Amino acid sequence: MRTYLDHNATTQVRPNAVAAMTEVMARVGNPSSVHADGQGALARVELARRVVGKALRARPEDIIFTSGGTEALNLALHAAISAGGVDRIIVTALEHEAVAATARASGLPVETWPVNADGVVEISWLADRLASCSGDYGRPVLAMMLASNETGTIQPVQEAATLVRDAGGLTVVDAIQAVGKIDVDFAGLGCDYLAVSAHKFGGPQGVGALLAACNAPMARHHHGGGQEKGRRAGTLNVAGIVGLATALEEAVSSLDDFASLAIQRDKMAVAIRAVAPQMIEIGARASRLPNTLGMSLPGWPGATQVMALDLDGVAISAGSACSSGSSKGSKVGTALGLPEDASQGFVRVSLGWNSKPDDADAFIKAWTAAYARAALPSKQMPEEAVG
Amino acid sequence: MRTYLDHNATTQVRPNAVAAMTEVMARVGNPSSVHADGQGALARVELARRVVGKALRARPEDIIFTSGGTEALNLALHAAISAGGVDRIIVTALEHEAVAATARASGLPVETWPVNADGVVEISWLADRLASCSGDYGRPVLAMMLASNETGTIQPVQEAATLVRDAGGLTVVDAIQAVGKIDVDFAGLGCDYLAVSAHKFGGPQGVGALLAACNAPMARHHHGGGQEKGRRAGTLNVAGIVGLATALEEAVSSLDDFASLAIQRDKMAVAIRAVAPQMIEIGARASRLPNTLGMSLPGWPGATQVMALDLDGVAISAGSACSSGSSKGSKVGTALGLPEDASQGFVRVSLGWNSKPDDADAFIKAWTAAYARAALPSKQMPEEAVG
Repeated sequence: MRTYLDHNATTQVRPNAVAAMTEVMARVGNPSSVHADGQGALARVELARRVVGKALRARPEDIIFTSGGTEALNLALHAAISAGGVDRIIVTALEHEAVAATARASGLPVETWPVNADGVVEISWLADRLASCSGDYGRPVLAMMLASNETGTIQPVQEAATLVRDAGGLTVVDAIQAVGKIDVDFAGLGCDYLAVSAHKFGGPQGVGALLAACNAPMARHHHGGGQEKGRRAGTLNVAGIVGLATALEEAVSSLDDFASLAIQRDKMAVAIRAVAPQMIEIGARASRLPNTLGMSLPGWPGATQVMALDLDGVAISAGSACSSGSSKGSKVGTALGLPEDASQGFVRVSLGWNSKPDDADAFIKAWTAAYARAALPSKQMPEEAVG
Repeated sequence: MRTYLDHNATTQVRPNAVAAMTEVMARVGNPSSVHADGQGALARVELARRVVGKALRARPEDIIFTSGGTEALNLALHAAISAGGVDRIIVTALEHEAVAATARASGLPVETWPVNADGVVEISWLADRLASCSGDYGRPVLAMMLASNETGTIQPVQEAATLVRDAGGLTVVDAIQAVGKIDVDFAGLGCDYLAVSAHKFGGPQGVGALLAACNAPMARHHHGGGQEKGRRAGTLNVAGIVGLATALEEAVSSLDDFASLAIQRDKMAVAIRAVAPQMIEIGARASRLPNTLGMSLPGWPGATQVMALDLDGVAISAGSACSSGSSKGSKVGTALGLPEDASQGFVRVSLGWNSKPDDADAFIKAWTAAYARAALPSKQMPEEAVG
């Protein structure tokens, strides 16, 4: 029996989402077809669109279904840049490569908004930066996470979007880790684009959405059929879209349960700190997702921790799954300016909608046992190694 | 009880594919994660990749999983053009908008390879065209269907790819309607890229693949994680990929059964011609997919036929589903240079892997009844209206 604590990488598909998808797949129909079978499929998509709109406080017509979060973010940045007049892209130091690499590939200057020691960007930096670039300059595009995939820290999106709007710019929000975990209010955030990925909240892999405000510029990234009002070409994934909506509705209606995962999260942090006081819990003083524990054990590489726990049946991560093949480790260590040994000692433990208290206990048991076996210089000098 | 005869728009997901997907969705794991849960997901993807490679005679490492056919075609054209030195794109007159619109959006000159009266391109045109553009010119990119979505006519891909290769160019093949319906041999065709869509052969919507030969240029279209060896970013849709492979394996192992659909197809054509001798069966003299009947009834708009049959419980199409919202009607009428009334009178009847002989009978009954009710000038003068 394994213990899965890597829900920020991907979480268990909710049984109700699987059931809804299975029901859709028992039928046949392409939503672009005019006959009754096609229109039945279209009706299922449009019902899902209303469910998603209600869950995220967006107009149904502002929702563009995509193949996932990466496509949604690529589409948003493509649309924002294609509108013209953009002279730079501002990204936070925490952004996923789906934003960071897309920004770099644009050919535009990319500015990095630094994070503080708590893993949060400070709005004063953006205000200063925008003030120093007003006037003859073009307009900025800001791309930022609502909640970090690695630390769970929640970023000041609403304040940032207001500043960027006042500067004539556009804001793209990567809400992929936030949706279904905390309340996300698209209208209230005031951003132009917001990206969603189903498999982070118990929907299937391979489907997501981009929310685009009614006055946000749009430019298709895939060419083809006229689906999604010409904003995204490709036959709609009816079962996936219905699975996304089913999972989102369930997640949003159980946010209180999800919030209580913080009890397990904090229990794990306390237990680890009891045996390893040099542990650095990132974002402990900040507003965070309730499920995410981002921590560093200086001198004990995250990859080694992941392997040790995996052998003991516990799945955690040394950073985002997408970058886990790379040797660079997590983004957060570099972003926070941690010393090399602390940066490399980062791991992410992320609970999920189906986590049980036993899971936290299993993690604590496995981690402390692995730590006891590890020969770490930091164990001899905890007072020096405390961050 | 409805009769579904629009399988080229989307076909019924095969129960074995649904079962395989349900089994995958009962587990959790992101194939990019290094722990056992992630590696289990990766193993399922890699097994699927080998199944697809075997079914289409491609090397597993040449298969890039995508969100569907549109993304695969966009990726292929983007990669071919990004390689540089391309001075024009040649597309056949039958291409889907996923190719035609992508070619137009490239900014490069687009040349259209005409089709003959049988709905097939003639290799001599391409040979002449390439011969007249050799020397100081850049290299061409050719994008062509293996089988037409509207008429089922099979195009001379292997000969074309050889000519294009000799001219230093690259060939993108839209095999979306061919895969799972006839034998498709990627290695034997000798093309550089080949696009596949799962939902056309009984896999789920929202997943497809691009096959790229080992020496074909590649350039990612989505930026983000390093999935698919850096060729396509985005968390892999494990259940969808397993569903694609399951359906493809089943389809390829039952091609003989699929071929026998031609009996039902021809039965429908004969029955219609018996009451409406002015009917034009497109591609009847050409090599065609066994399941596709593309026909025109001059003077009786395809959209009207579709609506009449839909009311009688039979689903057919007036062209590709993706263009069915547009007033332009099917591409094939224009491509074949049919007179206006014949072009507008086009309908596509497409059988599928789960079609029964009763379905053809239901179509014949519904069509002949609707035809008898329709007040058509062509009924009075069949000898003039014959194409």
